[in-house]
Amino acid sequence: MTERLEQQIAFLNEADKLKSVVRGTTLCDASRYENSAEHSWHLTLYALVLADQAGPDVDITRVIKMLILHDLVEIDAGDNPIFGDYDAQAMQVSELAAADRIFGLLPDDLRADLRSIWEEFEAAKTASAQFAKSLDRFQPPMQNLQSGGGSWNDYNVSQTQIAEKVGAKIAIGAPALWAFAKAKIATFFANRPTDQT
Amino acid sequence: MTERLEQQIAFLNEADKLKSVVRGTTLCDASRYENSAEHSWHLTLYALVLADQAGPDVDITRVIKMLILHDLVEIDAGDNPIFGDYDAQAMQVSELAAADRIFGLLPDDLRADLRSIWEEFEAAKTASAQFAKSLDRFQPPMQNLQSGGGSWNDYNVSQTQIAEKVGAKIAIGAPALWAFAKAKIATFFANRPTDQT
Repeated sequence: MTERLEQQIAFLNEADKLKSVVRGTTLCDASRYENSAEHSWHLTLYALVLADQAGPDVDITRVIKMLILHDLVEIDAGDNPIFGDYDAQAMQVSELAAADRIFGLLPDDLRADLRSIWEEFEAAKTASAQFAKSLDRFQPPMQNLQSGGGSWNDYNVSQTQIAEKVGAKIAIGAPALWAFAKAKIATFFANRPTDQT
Repeated sequence: MTERLEQQIAFLNEADKLKSVVRGTTLCDASRYENSAEHSWHLTLYALVLADQAGPDVDITRVIKMLILHDLVEIDAGDNPIFGDYDAQAMQVSELAAADRIFGLLPDDLRADLRSIWEEFEAAKTASAQFAKSLDRFQPPMQNLQSGGGSWNDYNVSQTQIAEKVGAKIAIGAPALWAFAKAKIATFFANRPTDQT
């Protein structure tokens, strides 16, 4: 019993490191870059509040569990900003090694359970995983709209690039959320000072 | 539809402010104080990983929803470190006003739903709320044990004070977690440099 609890706490202590993984998106007030732990919390709240956007086959409890776990591998593999340059295949290898190490801290039954939730998210084949992925893509533009552009400015991206890299993925699991974001983004870019366009 | 979505997003944007509410506990590596958003995420992970510590009447999904929402009122009311001086009655008044304002940003049905989850947590009468509260009290000592004492040093507290202010509350919903923490805390204090005891 105590040994099991020691393993559970070792995992939870290791997970604390996600609070130090910095993302490409800032807080709404642009005061600093967001970390992956608080981002994960925000997404679980997105799931609670936007559950009415999920299709009939989506299990919201499963979505919330995916969102709690989805970024843990970044403790080893780091965050790769969507508009940055990265090698998708190398990233996948590094995330798999991270999953082996981090979920491997848990007792066997829990490791299998939590890892299967993370793998379902990564595979993006079930309705629940697709909705979770859509929320993960939908939150950063909502933050950028509040902060004055955020990562769109940092990476100097166009509306077309946003639509291709982000919009297409939001639309898979939550088409009405992409329609909403797209209109807001168009207004934002139309009203942007010309030296930034 | 769009007006509903505008309200949902306004709430989610407001919730972003929880990332700027600083707590009395540090990260495990003591590099900085923890904020209430990342703390909330960590607690949802505690619930997933320590679900086997919950009694038979606990609904873990409900616990996770409580933990996602439990600190939102701190956006207006601030965090009150457990070992600090605060007026519990004034805090309750200020948290109720915060709940009115913050949950009030939501469409009516969602406001009623999410607020009832928060109120169940606050009332601490159901098995689910008691387990959620126990996790909320159990995580800070786990962080302090990692960081070299954390808020125990800042507030110069004794083992007796920890047992009274924290232990008793952990024990209500998760007695084995308090037994585990208590033993770790005893070892920690026994090995502490004498100038800190």
